Amino acid sequence: MTGAMLFYSKFDDANDWREHLLNAMPGLDFRPHPDVGNPADIESAMVWKAPPGEMRKYPNLKLIVNIGAGVDYILKDDTLPPGVPIMRLVDPEQNRMMAQYVLLTVLRYHRNFPELEKQRREKRWQYIHPRESASLPIGVMGIGNIGSHVATELVRQGFPVSGWSRTPKSVEGVATFHGRDQLKPFLARSHILVLIMPFTPETDGIVNRDVLYALPRGAKIINIGRGALIDEAALAGAIRDGQIGAATLDVFRTEPLPSDHPFWDIEEITITPHLASIAVPRSASLQIAENLRRLRAGEKLFNIVDRARGY
Amino acid sequence: MTGAMLFYSKFDDANDWREHLLNAMPGLDFRPHPDVGNPADIESAMVWKAPPGEMRKYPNLKLIVNIGAGVDYILKDDTLPPGVPIMRLVDPEQNRMMAQYVLLTVLRYHRNFPELEKQRREKRWQYIHPRESASLPIGVMGIGNIGSHVATELVRQGFPVSGWSRTPKSVEGVATFHGRDQLKPFLARSHILVLIMPFTPETDGIVNRDVLYALPRGAKIINIGRGALIDEAALAGAIRDGQIGAATLDVFRTEPLPSDHPFWDIEEITITPHLASIAVPRSASLQIAENLRRLRAGEKLFNIVDRARGY
Repeated sequence: MTGAMLFYSKFDDANDWREHLLNAMPGLDFRPHPDVGNPADIESAMVWKAPPGEMRKYPNLKLIVNIGAGVDYILKDDTLPPGVPIMRLVDPEQNRMMAQYVLLTVLRYHRNFPELEKQRREKRWQYIHPRESASLPIGVMGIGNIGSHVATELVRQGFPVSGWSRTPKSVEGVATFHGRDQLKPFLARSHILVLIMPFTPETDGIVNRDVLYALPRGAKIINIGRGALIDEAALAGAIRDGQIGAATLDVFRTEPLPSDHPFWDIEEITITPHLASIAVPRSASLQIAENLRRLRAGEKLFNIVDRARGY
Repeated sequence: MTGAMLFYSKFDDANDWREHLLNAMPGLDFRPHPDVGNPADIESAMVWKAPPGEMRKYPNLKLIVNIGAGVDYILKDDTLPPGVPIMRLVDPEQNRMMAQYVLLTVLRYHRNFPELEKQRREKRWQYIHPRESASLPIGVMGIGNIGSHVATELVRQGFPVSGWSRTPKSVEGVATFHGRDQLKPFLARSHILVLIMPFTPETDGIVNRDVLYALPRGAKIINIGRGALIDEAALAGAIRDGQIGAATLDVFRTEPLPSDHPFWDIEEITITPHLASIAVPRSASLQIAENLRRLRAGEKLFNIVDRARGY
């Protein structure tokens, strides 16, 4: 009944996870790929970007843990055993890292750091009068678990914050909008647009030319969701037009961003290599342990993905 | 009895202040320099970097308001009428701006933005695994009104925070140290040292070679207090040695920073032109109005500078 746990990720540190998982679950039989042993031993699997078909190899698999918040990659695998629940991590430390990335990149624009850093490289001293954060309305597109945390931190820093989601939601201090009908008024007031949506067939390319031109002229984009939320050609065009003033992108349709991608030649685009946040072993191990305990006790699991909805 | 208010600043917008002061004090006779009229009409003066002797011109002056938190400049004027109280602004919006500057510059280091921005300019994609904020202990030197607010915001972001002050102080979630005896243990645990002290004879050059070498090797400095807190030659030397990893400086002994200053040639020093915060007319006008009301009613004033202590 207490089987082994497979670990499959080329991005995360198996030893770090092992240490924290064993703290939370003493005696856990932890097996980092490729040292899997007998596939029939595997009861649970922690995975990030495993190749399609990998999960089919384990006949007694009862729980898949997606290392991270976005499950679009794992759901693309149409050989995934249909009855096995997929847990996504909803980790307070990961939320904090996401919010920090957004705070950093919003404040970087708000406090004119791209310009100040340029001046500094050119050895120029030129005062720029700072503005109150009350003067910079921000829109957060996607106010689920991560988005609502990000919005709350921005509110705390004095920015007027709006939030948009597919279905009605409420976040303290945030003006909320929902559905296609309320998208335009939400966009019209967003001088910085922060994208934190999951990738689903519905959100594929949702930030298209229409959306970009519904923002105030000179608006900026921050994307920590998925690259495919954005129509990349439309964004490049909107920046060249001056409709979009700048963008900070952590995620892209193709990663690593190909060296011939037009974004590299657009100075207004800040590019970071998909590092806005990570699943933090110290904190996330606790919730994985709890779900494994529930699984073995036959209790109801939490943070399980709705495969039809896509998150 | 209800005299006029002089406004003297080459850095702040008189019209913006006029609008907010008149909202708070309808009917206020507001006189921006040089349109002062009869000097005997002046009851109160809002000043930032007025030349020495200026305050002597107004025989009926009863209150000086320093536009900003630091009063070292105004106290250097030894012709200042001795009996006139000096109010310093203790403005929540100014605190927020200070904390934002520190959050921005701390997160910029913590999340490797100097390196990531360099990679981006060179069109390179190279992943850097992000760290938890729990792994980066920060020391705040000076935990008065502004410093304690800054420390609280850093605690919220998950950083382990220590604070040092001249006299014992307590800030929730912050390990506090005080006095010369406790300076070394405070420094030993500060991987980023944030300076937010007032400039007084006691703090002149307090961050000297001894202090810099008591920090962990590779520590970073952020200075939003006053330039003269730092022995600038010692800092330049410690960066060349690798003892100090980097610095972000908003204030300098001489401002604007002279074009032949050695700091310009040290790539590890981020230079911003004294803009970490400003007094915000919207919020600060309310406390100025309240002190003027108290002055006229003969009540006790608040936020009055202790000239002997220097802040």
